[in-house]
Amino acid sequence: MSVRAGIVITGTEVLTGRVRDLNGPWLADQLLELGVELAHITQCGDRAEDLTAQLVFLAGQNVDLIITSGGLGPTADDLTVATVARFYGRDLVLDDALEQRIAAILRRLGAGRPGVDFDAVMAANRKQAMVPVGAQILEPVGTAPGVVLYSEHQPTVVVLPGPPRELQPMWSTAVATDGVQRAIAGRTRYLQRTVRMFGLPESGLAETLREAQFQVAGFDNLEITTCLRRGELEIVTRYEPDAADSYTALVELLRERYPRELFSEDGSLIDDQVAGALAGRTIATAESCTAGLLAARLADRAGSSAYLAGGVVSYSNEAKIELLGVDEALIAQHGAVSEPVARAMAEGALARFGADTAVGITGIAGPGGGSEQKPVGTVCFGLAVAGSDTVARTLHLPGDRSDVRERSTTVAMHLLREHLGSTQLP
Amino acid sequence: MSVRAGIVITGTEVLTGRVRDLNGPWLADQLLELGVELAHITQCGDRAEDLTAQLVFLAGQNVDLIITSGGLGPTADDLTVATVARFYGRDLVLDDALEQRIAAILRRLGAGRPGVDFDAVMAANRKQAMVPVGAQILEPVGTAPGVVLYSEHQPTVVVLPGPPRELQPMWSTAVATDGVQRAIAGRTRYLQRTVRMFGLPESGLAETLREAQFQVAGFDNLEITTCLRRGELEIVTRYEPDAADSYTALVELLRERYPRELFSEDGSLIDDQVAGALAGRTIATAESCTAGLLAARLADRAGSSAYLAGGVVSYSNEAKIELLGVDEALIAQHGAVSEPVARAMAEGALARFGADTAVGITGIAGPGGGSEQKPVGTVCFGLAVAGSDTVARTLHLPGDRSDVRERSTTVAMHLLREHLGSTQLP
Repeated sequence: MSVRAGIVITGTEVLTGRVRDLNGPWLADQLLELGVELAHITQCGDRAEDLTAQLVFLAGQNVDLIITSGGLGPTADDLTVATVARFYGRDLVLDDALEQRIAAILRRLGAGRPGVDFDAVMAANRKQAMVPVGAQILEPVGTAPGVVLYSEHQPTVVVLPGPPRELQPMWSTAVATDGVQRAIAGRTRYLQRTVRMFGLPESGLAETLREAQFQVAGFDNLEITTCLRRGELEIVTRYEPDAADSYTALVELLRERYPRELFSEDGSLIDDQVAGALAGRTIATAESCTAGLLAARLADRAGSSAYLAGGVVSYSNEAKIELLGVDEALIAQHGAVSEPVARAMAEGALARFGADTAVGITGIAGPGGGSEQKPVGTVCFGLAVAGSDTVARTLHLPGDRSDVRERSTTVAMHLLREHLGSTQLP
Repeated sequence: MSVRAGIVITGTEVLTGRVRDLNGPWLADQLLELGVELAHITQCGDRAEDLTAQLVFLAGQNVDLIITSGGLGPTADDLTVATVARFYGRDLVLDDALEQRIAAILRRLGAGRPGVDFDAVMAANRKQAMVPVGAQILEPVGTAPGVVLYSEHQPTVVVLPGPPRELQPMWSTAVATDGVQRAIAGRTRYLQRTVRMFGLPESGLAETLREAQFQVAGFDNLEITTCLRRGELEIVTRYEPDAADSYTALVELLRERYPRELFSEDGSLIDDQVAGALAGRTIATAESCTAGLLAARLADRAGSSAYLAGGVVSYSNEAKIELLGVDEALIAQHGAVSEPVARAMAEGALARFGADTAVGITGIAGPGGGSEQKPVGTVCFGLAVAGSDTVARTLHLPGDRSDVRERSTTVAMHLLREHLGSTQLP
């Protein structure tokens, strides 16, 4: 038996895409951890009839729990509590004690702010103290209280405010309420594991998964989703604890079939692995087509200053020659996009920054600049590691300018992982 | 009479929040521009029954148009076309000619890639050539074709692939089809204009818009949404053509009130404006906390090699000294995050790259490294222009590490626009 939930995100600014919704993904994650299956997320604007339609839809989908976010403010277009109450068949009543608590919060917030008409603010906020009969109140983190509605014959509804910094702590409070606990009592605890691969096409994996149906006992107990992200294949599997052997068998099959391509079984990202491999090292970059994206990606994580010395963006040939010491003749002979130049860029960065590891990237991101021999998407990589021979590789990457540039940083990360994993510091 | 639409975003990876949905907001924007009212966005995982439930729900909401995104790949969990066909009461048939066209695309993509079993790939991709009877095919931009389904008695359904770079051009094709044109025939035509500002708080703008209610005749005919994006305020106004005078009056008010802050009335981005200002110039960057993000942003657009010479990512102090020629004593005296160092970095980049324009950025992105005098978010900028005095500026930027770094590139872009706009080439 499994417990299903639906999430309703309200707000015209979210529906129209002006404001990015952060609550749907966050709540999805929380439900997953709880072992509650998320069936639907719906978004609507600040219109009572559309919100009602979504609530009716979700209730008809046999969900046990509905969570709404947004529409709890003091203005006229904030209508979630009233709409949910009507849907639930409950009247709204003013909760005097709650009104006093909201007033206290507003007084504290307004303190020392000049020109605020406190009576007008309170009148506008009185509506936030109107709660459905019998609802459990979630104390405000900002100024808006949430509510939990429970009945035997309808899904439990949790009404939360839109701002994530209010919604998140209030969700924790909501989970502990009777209404939510009863709704999720029958939940199944699932495990979720992620495998990541690099360097194979999605269709190849699809073929392997079709074969796995016959080779992995209990394959049907695994809920597998695959997706291509930043040039990597991500395979997420969800299963009940007693299907653990099937999952182990699946991973063994993947490991056997893709010994080079499978790089992560424990949820770690390539960025985590490279950060680990760089511990105790110093890295520098020399970038042409990626123009700083690799350095920026390495610097994404806090603490990267321990190993990132810096980099050169050598967009022009002069910069390659002057700043990285690439031999002009090398460029003339092989072209700026060539393995010898990528190698020389990496070695130049190694020397200039006094690093022990360096990556050079030079390529044609497009849309212009391609030729028959070197079409758009041709990217050359060089990896220089102190005490080892410098290696070079050429790839033809698909997609537009921005795809080619981003994909190039992923390739560079994998080049680092492969070589640093097996190379000892001198 | 208004035309209403619903959007269905499919994919377990999106529903569970592992991949951020970019298509909902993008399509919402497109519909807005077309004059079609968006009523609902729904998200579901890769489960046929949930997708069917959402299609039935939307059809019951009297929408004229349903757009789906995702689930068109070759793997078993890609089931949108088959599910939509069943919902629409249409059989699937193999389109031989389409299969040949997909094969040609796959052959081109696979060319030169060793170890790819082409027959296996083709078998996996055959299912992408299965289309509902009577559907209009949208030619693939990647490998997945889309379809448009039209009938007199049901909403038109447009089925698009999930990757935004495929979905976006295919949507343009879809809009031109008979099926979509018939669905949206009764729409109201709106105009939509965007004004962008930088350097004022959202609450200040809200106050001005409240005043505008009394000062702008016909203000209520303007549908205004504001949002803060990448540190800039974006004010999008939608109106029917006969409210054009009200819009003109609103823009005049904003221009008068914010002569410095308002930088775009014609939809242009700061990146467009900086690219324009850099024509005939050569720019170099010297980046510490942003670690290449500014160079990468300048290189985002095709043709940027005409003015971008390159940059130095000087993450370590040694790099600032060795590669940019920053005086060691300057760092010792003022600290690496200081206006004198930002200035010296810009001047160093100007000299090293032989550029006529250079930006230096040094700051504390956090989470560590802050102090009482220089808290996290403190960022110093230097702008060196040949023939002018180098300028410096210090800002305190809000947000986390990634916010501070990204916001810093926006500040640098505005610094460039302001100064290059008024500075003639020597």
